[in-house]
Amino acid sequence: MNSKRADSLSDKVIGRIPVQECLRAKRRAARRLYVLEGAKGLEGIVHEARVPVVECSRRYLDALAAGAVHQGVVLEADPLPIATLEEWAKRSIAPDAVVVALDGVEDPHNFGAIVRSAAACGASAVLYAKDRAAPISAVSMKSAAGAMEYIDLIQVTNLVRSFEKLKELGFWIAAFDADAPQTLWEADLKGRIVLVIGSEGKGIRHLVRQHSDFHLRIPLTGPITSLNASVSAAIALAECLRQREGNRA
Amino acid sequence: MNSKRADSLSDKVIGRIPVQECLRAKRRAARRLYVLEGAKGLEGIVHEARVPVVECSRRYLDALAAGAVHQGVVLEADPLPIATLEEWAKRSIAPDAVVVALDGVEDPHNFGAIVRSAAACGASAVLYAKDRAAPISAVSMKSAAGAMEYIDLIQVTNLVRSFEKLKELGFWIAAFDADAPQTLWEADLKGRIVLVIGSEGKGIRHLVRQHSDFHLRIPLTGPITSLNASVSAAIALAECLRQREGNRA
Repeated sequence: MNSKRADSLSDKVIGRIPVQECLRAKRRAARRLYVLEGAKGLEGIVHEARVPVVECSRRYLDALAAGAVHQGVVLEADPLPIATLEEWAKRSIAPDAVVVALDGVEDPHNFGAIVRSAAACGASAVLYAKDRAAPISAVSMKSAAGAMEYIDLIQVTNLVRSFEKLKELGFWIAAFDADAPQTLWEADLKGRIVLVIGSEGKGIRHLVRQHSDFHLRIPLTGPITSLNASVSAAIALAECLRQREGNRA
Repeated sequence: MNSKRADSLSDKVIGRIPVQECLRAKRRAARRLYVLEGAKGLEGIVHEARVPVVECSRRYLDALAAGAVHQGVVLEADPLPIATLEEWAKRSIAPDAVVVALDGVEDPHNFGAIVRSAAACGASAVLYAKDRAAPISAVSMKSAAGAMEYIDLIQVTNLVRSFEKLKELGFWIAAFDADAPQTLWEADLKGRIVLVIGSEGKGIRHLVRQHSDFHLRIPLTGPITSLNASVSAAIALAECLRQREGNRA
C-alpha cells in the first residue's frame, strides 16, 4: 500500500491519546518521541514507544506541535497510511463491511469525530474526496482520539466515480438526506453498505444523490431540524450495529 | 418560572444561527441588536429583530462578544430561561417525554452538541447539576446551533436527588454505561424516560448508577472502545425516536 502524506503535520502525532493509540495500533513505524522536561504521567507512553526519547523544553515542543495541544508529548512517526480505492479493494473486505463516505465534510472536528465513531462501531473504512474534505491534521486527529490509527482511510479524487467501483465490490450506497422519503429504520443495512454523509450546510450534492442506491432520513421531530454531520454519521453507524446485532443473536 | 443568569455571557446571544433562533423561538425578549458596519447577509435578522439596531465597529463587536466568533452580529436579550426541577414539574409533560440528564459533561462543545441533538430528536429537556456541567456560554450556545432557545433547560443541585422527583413524575431512569449488561436495543425506552449520559473520562458515577432503574450499553465492536459523550447521547436519543416511530406506525 502506498502511504501518502496528507499534510505537513501528518508525521507528527500530537497529544497523549493520539500518541498512545499510534503506538498500540502499530500500523506505522514510530521514529522518535519528544516529551516535555519534567512532565508527569508519560511513563507508559515512553515505555511503549521503544524509540529514542528526547526531553525538550515547552518552547521547543510548542513549536514542534505547531500550535496544537500536545499535553507534553509529540511522536514522530511514518505518515498515516492512506489508501486509494484500488489499493483498498485488494484487501480482504468483510461480507458486512460498512464504509462511511463523506461528501464535503470540511470541518476537521467533524471529520475526526466521524472517524472515531466509525472505528468504535466497527466500520471498515472512511472514504473522502481529496478536494472536498478536511485534511488529516492535528485537529482532526485529536477529535478522532486515536481512531485514525485503526480505521482504513481511503482518499479518492471523485466521490461519484468511487461509487461505481464500490458497487462492483457488492456495496449498496445509502445517502443520508433530510428530505429522503424512507427512514433509516425502514432500510435493510445488512451486507456491504456505504453510508454517505453530506456537509452540514449543503447536505449531499445532487450528483452524489443521483448515484446512490437509496436515500434515507433520520426522522427528526423537534424544533431543530438538522443534526451535526458527525451526529448523523453516528446514528447511521449505530443503526448498522443494531441490524447486525440482530443478525448475530 | 424564574429566569436565572447562568453567566455573564448568557444575555448576549452571539453569532448568526444563535441570534436567528433566539428571535424565532421568542422565549425571551430581545433588547438590542448589534451589527457590524457594512456586514452583508444580516437583513433577515435585522428585519426579524424588531428592536433597536446599533451598527458598530469590529473592535466594539469583538469586545462585546468577549472573544467568541460573532459573524457580525450580537443580540442583547433577556437571560436564557433555566428552570428548577420543581418549576419544570408544574408544566405539562408529555406521556412519552424524554429527558437527557448529564452527569459531569464539562466540555462546553459536548454540552451544546447534546442540547442540539436533544432538540432535534424532540426531547423535552436537558437536565444537569449546577456544579458538574459546563456552564451555558458562548461556546456551548454556538455548538447548540440555536437549540438552547427551544429545549427546556433544568438545573439541579443534586443529580441523584433529582431522580427521586423524576421517578415520582413517572420517569424511568436509564443510565448509559460501557459495562452495562443490557444493550440499548433490548430496552423498552417508550413512555417517560431519562437518558443519563456520563462524562467521557469518568463515565457515570457510582451513586448515579445505583439510583438508576436500568443500565444500558451501546455494544461497540471496533478497536476504539469509547464514544464521545455527545455521540452516545445522540445514539440514545435516536433509539428513543425509533421506538416511538414504531409506536406511531
